[in-house]
Amino acid sequence: MRVYLDYAATTPVKKEVLEAMKPFFSEDFGNPSSIHTWGQSARRAVDEARAQIAQFLNCRSEEIIFTGSGSEADNLAITGVIAQISKSKFLISKQIPNSKSQNQKPHIITSAFEHHAVLKTCEDLEKRGLATVTYIRPNNEGIVEPEKIKKAIRPNTVLVSIMYVNNEIGTIQPIREIGKMIESENRKRLKENRNQYRKQKIENATSNFKQPFSQIYLHTDAVQAAESLPMDVDYLHVDMLTIAGHKIGAPKGIGLLYVRRGTPLAPMIHGGEQESGRRAGTENVPSIVGLAEAIRQIQKAKTKRQNDNLKLANLRDYFIKKIQEEIPEVYLNGSKINRAPHIVNLYFKNIEGEAIVLAMDLEGVACSTGSACTSQSLEPSHVIMAIFNDHLRAAGSVRFSLSKLTTKKELDFAIFKIRKVVQRLREISPYGKRG
Amino acid sequence: MRVYLDYAATTPVKKEVLEAMKPFFSEDFGNPSSIHTWGQSARRAVDEARAQIAQFLNCRSEEIIFTGSGSEADNLAITGVIAQISKSKFLISKQIPNSKSQNQKPHIITSAFEHHAVLKTCEDLEKRGLATVTYIRPNNEGIVEPEKIKKAIRPNTVLVSIMYVNNEIGTIQPIREIGKMIESENRKRLKENRNQYRKQKIENATSNFKQPFSQIYLHTDAVQAAESLPMDVDYLHVDMLTIAGHKIGAPKGIGLLYVRRGTPLAPMIHGGEQESGRRAGTENVPSIVGLAEAIRQIQKAKTKRQNDNLKLANLRDYFIKKIQEEIPEVYLNGSKINRAPHIVNLYFKNIEGEAIVLAMDLEGVACSTGSACTSQSLEPSHVIMAIFNDHLRAAGSVRFSLSKLTTKKELDFAIFKIRKVVQRLREISPYGKRG
Repeated sequence: MRVYLDYAATTPVKKEVLEAMKPFFSEDFGNPSSIHTWGQSARRAVDEARAQIAQFLNCRSEEIIFTGSGSEADNLAITGVIAQISKSKFLISKQIPNSKSQNQKPHIITSAFEHHAVLKTCEDLEKRGLATVTYIRPNNEGIVEPEKIKKAIRPNTVLVSIMYVNNEIGTIQPIREIGKMIESENRKRLKENRNQYRKQKIENATSNFKQPFSQIYLHTDAVQAAESLPMDVDYLHVDMLTIAGHKIGAPKGIGLLYVRRGTPLAPMIHGGEQESGRRAGTENVPSIVGLAEAIRQIQKAKTKRQNDNLKLANLRDYFIKKIQEEIPEVYLNGSKINRAPHIVNLYFKNIEGEAIVLAMDLEGVACSTGSACTSQSLEPSHVIMAIFNDHLRAAGSVRFSLSKLTTKKELDFAIFKIRKVVQRLREISPYGKRG
Repeated sequence: MRVYLDYAATTPVKKEVLEAMKPFFSEDFGNPSSIHTWGQSARRAVDEARAQIAQFLNCRSEEIIFTGSGSEADNLAITGVIAQISKSKFLISKQIPNSKSQNQKPHIITSAFEHHAVLKTCEDLEKRGLATVTYIRPNNEGIVEPEKIKKAIRPNTVLVSIMYVNNEIGTIQPIREIGKMIESENRKRLKENRNQYRKQKIENATSNFKQPFSQIYLHTDAVQAAESLPMDVDYLHVDMLTIAGHKIGAPKGIGLLYVRRGTPLAPMIHGGEQESGRRAGTENVPSIVGLAEAIRQIQKAKTKRQNDNLKLANLRDYFIKKIQEEIPEVYLNGSKINRAPHIVNLYFKNIEGEAIVLAMDLEGVACSTGSACTSQSLEPSHVIMAIFNDHLRAAGSVRFSLSKLTTKKELDFAIFKIRKVVQRLREISPYGKRG
């Protein structure tokens, strides 16, 4: 028996998705930008896919930008907003955008346990002097508190980027609350700006009036949330939202960024006029169709979806409970309640997580120490570090991620193997002797 | 009968390519960054694909960066080099990179008829004050002369980007000559820099010595060349080279940038450590495998390849000759000799090219007015404008692009239809009355 419990790293393409994609490889293969029949047929497929996804997100078709990955979508959201705002400020103030004054630079708020596609992008903007960034630490439950974000807001804050579900520990972030808080901050800012403008007008200093940063935009990386949580962008009060195909049964190499109308966004990839000029490059027709089909599978039946999620959450809780019963000194990372149904992250005291992953692999079970994207680096999980600031815990934690394909039988097999592996590793562990 | 003559816009995925891709969607679906068996199997597939392509390009595996499209690869080449060089200069001179002094800014040389993925990227860097750009005009034959590039070189020139085959008119650019010329310029510059450094050292002004721009890097967009021309990067003397999958029988949504070891390149998409930290995002395993298979098909047999290219060039010449015999006032755009075997671009005097494309579509033949990427814009072809600076010619030109699937029978059918369409359009043409 082989059991894959690393669905948060990637998922197999669903049968229906591959079937939907097939005609667009070699038969209906036109370039959607071509004006002839071959092209228009491909264009129609892309338009229909976009409409399907727009319905899922409760947005307009033209608010969706297809990208080559979730990482690209995250990068586009962050650099896109900063580049566009800097460009406008550049035009208004005639000053070079990376001016030395901290208050002139756009300010970003994010959390310390975001996916690296967000964190490294923020760090790069900081290094290049194009933005300043505040990294909010999540609380002990692995939740970013809206109050903390509110306190971090400055007059030059233009962007908040908080993930919907943490990809390593599975905790659900209060995006809707954060969205509402930001909206109220934006209203206040609008009022203040108006007053300031009036005041300056009276003082006859209009010509020197500098347009302040007018609004805060909210981006959420919803890559791990798309399968199971509400994805209505109005309900969530978000301006931008990232989805990655390969986390929800669509293929690798396709993602999307939802961008609310009116959000300033400079393109990252320049060239053709695809995606309304916001992302150049021939549309990846089969994968776009595949992504739409994967989303259609998710939204098929709301009741069925709720039942599936409940079933999955029950399996997850069974898994946690069973392991904690059978193995001593295992601790759940992150809130037990505010948790996506498919991610479990456990701290096995006195063992290296990587040793568990490798030993489990030999036993036929796939799990991981954290994000696959960071597996090449030797650093301990930045997510666990952000929450607990504890190197041993960061090095000793393992993620098990389930999907709707996961069965109780598979979990029982995995639990059996985990117990075996942990027992053996603790016997030979260098920590064991000390502890 | 339906005849597709727009292979330069996109090609159907080859049967062998789709077959090679299939196992990696739903069975061998792991994330190459996962350290368990599932992931390592995917990693192996990516490594093998990379090795296959490296052999084709005569480069090292690690010199290949997979991207989401040819456009992304072009953008990465240009912004990547400029960003990295600006960063280093920033560190050395402690000056902000977009300083006002023109000689402090990196300088790019490109041609006026590049693909928009190159042109618009250069324009964006100019607008943002990060580089200055010289746009070389091609000659009447549609060729960029190495001499003109040589003359445009300044002490701060750091990048030359010239396409290998023009995507609209099919002319082959003398990349090897340009590459050799740049190498000799680089040798001269190295010598000068050494002398300058010695001189300053003697004058005891070492502390003020500013590292000059040390080298010129050559990038070529080889998207339309990969199927039929030499792709050995050492033979070509290039530092960077772009390939797009969907132009050579691989799927849409995959491209690559070859980057010679030592070329300064900042990543454009930040996040995970994929592609040696130069392009974040989960590897698109099926498409990478597909791209390698398409390339394997190309390199299968050198003699067969040469014969195929010859056959294709003969078909192309037959097509041009026949049309010019049968239809009055049709002119070939670009050199008759230095031409990729698959692209023909004809100027039909006194007719709108778009009218021809639409009428031909009704007759069952696909062709185009130029790049599919620019079909959404109403401007006349920037390629024809760059060569002839003639609006009527730019508006009256049509591209027919063939592939190794194209038959003489298909061409005869197309020629018959073109004659019919051109005759009818000339009868009703507003130009006709005047001329």
